[in-house]
Amino acid sequence: MNRPMLGIFDSGIGGLTVVKELLKRHSGASFVYLGDTARTPYGNKSPDTIIEYALEDAAFLVTKGATVIVIACNTASSYAADVLRATYPDIPVFDVIQPAVDAAAAMPEQCIGIIGTKATIASGVYETRLRAANPDLRAVSAACPLFVPLVEEGWTDRPETETIARVYLAPLLEKSIESLILGCTHYPLLFKVIRKVVGDGVSILDSPSALLDHMERELSIPEGGEQNMYFTDNNEYARYFRDWFGRPFVARRADIDSRDRGV
Amino acid sequence: MNRPMLGIFDSGIGGLTVVKELLKRHSGASFVYLGDTARTPYGNKSPDTIIEYALEDAAFLVTKGATVIVIACNTASSYAADVLRATYPDIPVFDVIQPAVDAAAAMPEQCIGIIGTKATIASGVYETRLRAANPDLRAVSAACPLFVPLVEEGWTDRPETETIARVYLAPLLEKSIESLILGCTHYPLLFKVIRKVVGDGVSILDSPSALLDHMERELSIPEGGEQNMYFTDNNEYARYFRDWFGRPFVARRADIDSRDRGV
Repeated sequence: MNRPMLGIFDSGIGGLTVVKELLKRHSGASFVYLGDTARTPYGNKSPDTIIEYALEDAAFLVTKGATVIVIACNTASSYAADVLRATYPDIPVFDVIQPAVDAAAAMPEQCIGIIGTKATIASGVYETRLRAANPDLRAVSAACPLFVPLVEEGWTDRPETETIARVYLAPLLEKSIESLILGCTHYPLLFKVIRKVVGDGVSILDSPSALLDHMERELSIPEGGEQNMYFTDNNEYARYFRDWFGRPFVARRADIDSRDRGV
Repeated sequence: MNRPMLGIFDSGIGGLTVVKELLKRHSGASFVYLGDTARTPYGNKSPDTIIEYALEDAAFLVTKGATVIVIACNTASSYAADVLRATYPDIPVFDVIQPAVDAAAAMPEQCIGIIGTKATIASGVYETRLRAANPDLRAVSAACPLFVPLVEEGWTDRPETETIARVYLAPLLEKSIESLILGCTHYPLLFKVIRKVVGDGVSILDSPSALLDHMERELSIPEGGEQNMYFTDNNEYARYFRDWFGRPFVARRADIDSRDRGV
């Protein structure tokens, strides 16, 4: 058995919200992160393509020594979690959906809103699992496809973003939701805008903290090893790292993409 | 020599504006189109990645019989046109930038605005070529990274889109631009909104029509052969085809992505 190490992946930078929550709780956590920035975003792609990319991402992390896989992306979690579990029967695979579902289902009888990418919402995975956890729950969902580009554009705190959030969230507010699941790891970065739009009466459940609660119950978070960040594109992410984590990381280039395939 | 056929590619669906202009002028044009929807968008990716993808896209078109390559994507044109010309010395390679530059440079002395993706604007290719064509031209540019997701979301005619367009275009209007180059093949779909924001006094130059003018001068458009549409993701694009072209096309899956690479 290798020295234990978390392998965390996302379609891009959204999964860094999971890394942030991890480091907040375990600053010495051993992990390798992969952001598939060369093919981001996943949220408007097809199930087949999402599964293919998730398999490649996980394979990369395993070659880097990951002994636990964390799918820090709701879109990949929606379509690829079971495929990854079947592919790696000896490796624990955590997805970001079940922990949020469990947290929501544990609350008193209520109406739950879910927001996510087009692919996540189209999968219906949250509604299905919420109903399985508690048939009395009512759930209503909305795809918010512009939220990821708004976050990646750095427009997290702008009036235009609030205007768009009001458009997306209106149908949920009409249903008088009592809690809201942020079903995309980018969305915690829009927390302030979303809170303003839904008001203080709605509980907001975000995937990274629900995931970390769940992981802490299920395993002992490995510490004391390496902390590495890989991205499939060679953009400069260092500027995020210092802002987000209060300390620098090196962004390494992960060469998982096809370079020598025969067309 | 194969029977002549145009090979047209884009990061996704934006290049269909070039196909539309082509079919408006030559309804029987022989062409094969590739939209790299599995890896879209290109506009926020790095030069290395953009070049790598453009090479793969062109290679696919050549295996399908293309005898002319048309880069129907400003981002790929900005970084990969010269690489493609060097890779395929016997195949004419058209990019979408030079025709728009030539059209703008032919107008009376003026101040020209350019809008495009983050990568296109960062390349400075329009300013460089405009200065080369006419040192008296003044040019000012702005990246509009949310325009592509807005188009792909179908928000081409919404007040939120107009609000965002006002934010992006304000610095150009402050410089009193007399014409505006739409430096992205998605942007003609935002024509109405852009026209409203810049007013009737600004000439709008779009790449697809400048490109077709240029191609018609340079070669005889091949007609009478096949018309094929390929996409690297297997999403359903048929809904666009009937709206855009007034007739259906079959969207075929192009398997150019890495499936059997060793990680």
